[in-house]
Amino acid sequence: MAMNSDEVHGLNGDMSVQSTHTNGNALTTPVKSDSACCANGDAVFQTPKQNGTSRRSPTKTFSFTAEPTIEDIRRMQAEFTDERDWNQFHQPRNLLLAMVGEVGEVSELFQWRGEVAEGLPNWTASEREHLAHELSDVLIYLVELAEKCHIDLPQAVLRKMAVNRLKYPASKVHGSAKKYTEYND
Amino acid sequence: MAMNSDEVHGLNGDMSVQSTHTNGNALTTPVKSDSACCANGDAVFQTPKQNGTSRRSPTKTFSFTAEPTIEDIRRMQAEFTDERDWNQFHQPRNLLLAMVGEVGEVSELFQWRGEVAEGLPNWTASEREHLAHELSDVLIYLVELAEKCHIDLPQAVLRKMAVNRLKYPASKVHGSAKKYTEYND
Amino acid sequence: MAMNSDEVHGLNGDMSVQSTHTNGNALTTPVKSDSACCANGDAVFQTPKQNGTSRRSPTKTFSFTAEPTIEDIRRMQAEFTDERDWNQFHQPRNLLLAMVGEVGEVSELFQWRGEVAEGLPNWTASEREHLAHELSDVLIYLVELAEKCHIDLPQAVLRKMAVNRLKYPASKVHGSAKKYTEYND
Amino acid sequence: MAMNSDEVHGLNGDMSVQSTHTNGNALTTPVKSDSACCANGDAVFQTPKQNGTSRRSPTKTFSFTAEPTIEDIRRMQAEFTDERDWNQFHQPRNLLLAMVGEVGEVSELFQWRGEVAEGLPNWTASEREHLAHELSDVLIYLVELAEKCHIDLPQAVLRKMAVNRLKYPASKVHGSAKKYTEYND
Repeated sequence: MAMNSDEVHGLNGDMSVQSTHTNGNALTTPVKSDSACCANGDAVFQTPKQNGTSRRSPTKTFSFTAEPTIEDIRRMQAEFTDERDWNQFHQPRNLLLAMVGEVGEVSELFQWRGEVAEGLPNWTASEREHLAHELSDVLIYLVELAEKCHIDLPQAVLRKMAVNRLKYPASKVHGSAKKYTEYND
Repeated sequence: MAMNSDEVHGLNGDMSVQSTHTNGNALTTPVKSDSACCANGDAVFQTPKQNGTSRRSPTKTFSFTAEPTIEDIRRMQAEFTDERDWNQFHQPRNLLLAMVGEVGEVSELFQWRGEVAEGLPNWTASEREHLAHELSDVLIYLVELAEKCHIDLPQAVLRKMAVNRLKYPASKVHGSAKKYTEYND
Repeated sequence: MAMNSDEVHGLNGDMSVQSTHTNGNALTTPVKSDSACCANGDAVFQTPKQNGTSRRSPTKTFSFTAEPTIEDIRRMQAEFTDERDWNQFHQPRNLLLAMVGEVGEVSELFQWRGEVAEGLPNWTASEREHLAHELSDVLIYLVELAEKCHIDLPQAVLRKMAVNRLKYPASKVHGSAKKYTEYND
Repeated sequence: MAMNSDEVHGLNGDMSVQSTHTNGNALTTPVKSDSACCANGDAVFQTPKQNGTSRRSPTKTFSFTAEPTIEDIRRMQAEFTDERDWNQFHQPRNLLLAMVGEVGEVSELFQWRGEVAEGLPNWTASEREHLAHELSDVLIYLVELAEKCHIDLPQAVLRKMAVNRLKYPASKVHGSAKKYTEYND
């Protein structure tokens, strides 16, 4: 779903999302109007917790808003697909190829730039929003692919992270590019 | 991070996750022991809401557990990276190429199978868990890429879904493969 | 380089390629006019050699024209890049991301179709030519990536094929999907 | 086909390729023994032709050996597949996913390195050969995908290059990163 960046503005109107919590209640989560125009609005910088191992910037870290959750996204996309009778096209391999297509679109945004620093310092607001849309497309198809494979993606991430902690013990791999490369191939 | 599927079992021990809710409280969410061995455990089937437009199975739909959220995953991965002093390697383009690598690993699991039906009916438990791990790797790198680009991924998905609803009105594209193809290229 | 399929016709004019042979001579190879409009023109079907191991169609096999060679493509693309002063953008990782983008575009052409049979039986001429263009883009960037990495791609293929013949002995893996899967992961 | 780089050496024995030229004659092209161990052996540097538009290094340019051609690779891979009775697995979408897998493996070789200069100056011989193998895998699957789609890949490249020359006139896009970006999205 390649986006013309001209299309993506002026959507501040009624963007809201029905978010179903684990207790079954629904509420409306309005999209913050400032984030509708800027992928990196004024939001979501926090003071990080201070501990000895942190190598991150001492002043600011970037974080996400808590919602929508992965399950919220799954449900919203399922409704979107149902309303259009598109489940007939959403077999696992079709969704996988769609995700590959969206990863390709993300790559096109980075392809001629050489190294890009954290925070995308020289990108325009329009370029940032274009990237926000393409990353979202990857996530939407990834979520639907996991759903159609009957894989509980949030829980799977917990299991994979547990594996990673066992596989790459912090005491063993700390701070060495050489070790890092060896441990990740 | 290619996983040998033999490595991924027997991790039921102490897998838990610190989940920060929007109200700032933290709690421990234990991983369900049944999902630690099976990607599609007994969990998360629900009766879907009944409405006129639904074309999904009338009896069962698959859903995810509510946690961890995307922000939980971001924070856990940030801690994992900090503890290993690996932020020096996690520039946006490095993370993008890592994500491409993981998408490649997902593709390898589907490459010689021909069409694959919803629920992966002929896959072994080991194959399902291998897929669960590779999908998780894609998500982990996608989340970290968005973080390093200072894009609030959950909010970006809401904006993209609003765009999609405008771009593909249900009344206009309902149930037509031809229209679907035209509308998605 | 996403192509509008409307753009790609009517190019029969002066398409020719300077092809340098191993003896150092150059000649002009005109593009066959019938292949300029149709990706699968009347060309290049041959009677396969008959031997005991062949499982291919007994009547027809599809083959390519002999030129341009991979080196011809490298040279033509180098000239194209030089003339536009674009070498400044064509570092290895930029070219790799460009190739990923093109693979994504190929994937988009296959994403909602379910299984596709050999020869693309239900594809229109325009769809075939669109695919021909996207496959060409993958090859062009692959060739330029190899060049910038100083890897002699044609010779590398010979070495890799020799490895594959040792790794998958015909006598051992013949005709078994199970063995095939095991041997290829 | 992930390669352990330890496996890929010592293959100088009898690697040769039957190369069918357009006149139908066949000859044996021995693999140069120096390139069998080193992806960037002593070979294939040439003095570039001197003309006003060239922006390449004035002293050396890298080129490929003339063979095998794309058609040679198609034929060798067809024989390899036939001998193993693997055509039953080589439908277009299977081959596409296999190619995506190989592109992922190329990406993994570049993922933690930051910017990489032309010629891969700090890569070991083993790393170069690993890359040579993965690039070869991409090419082999790309060629077989084109074959199974009945697309004459070498001729398709000529048509696509003609389109590119019309789309990006050298006089209009010369040397401008800004124009370059605009013209390529």
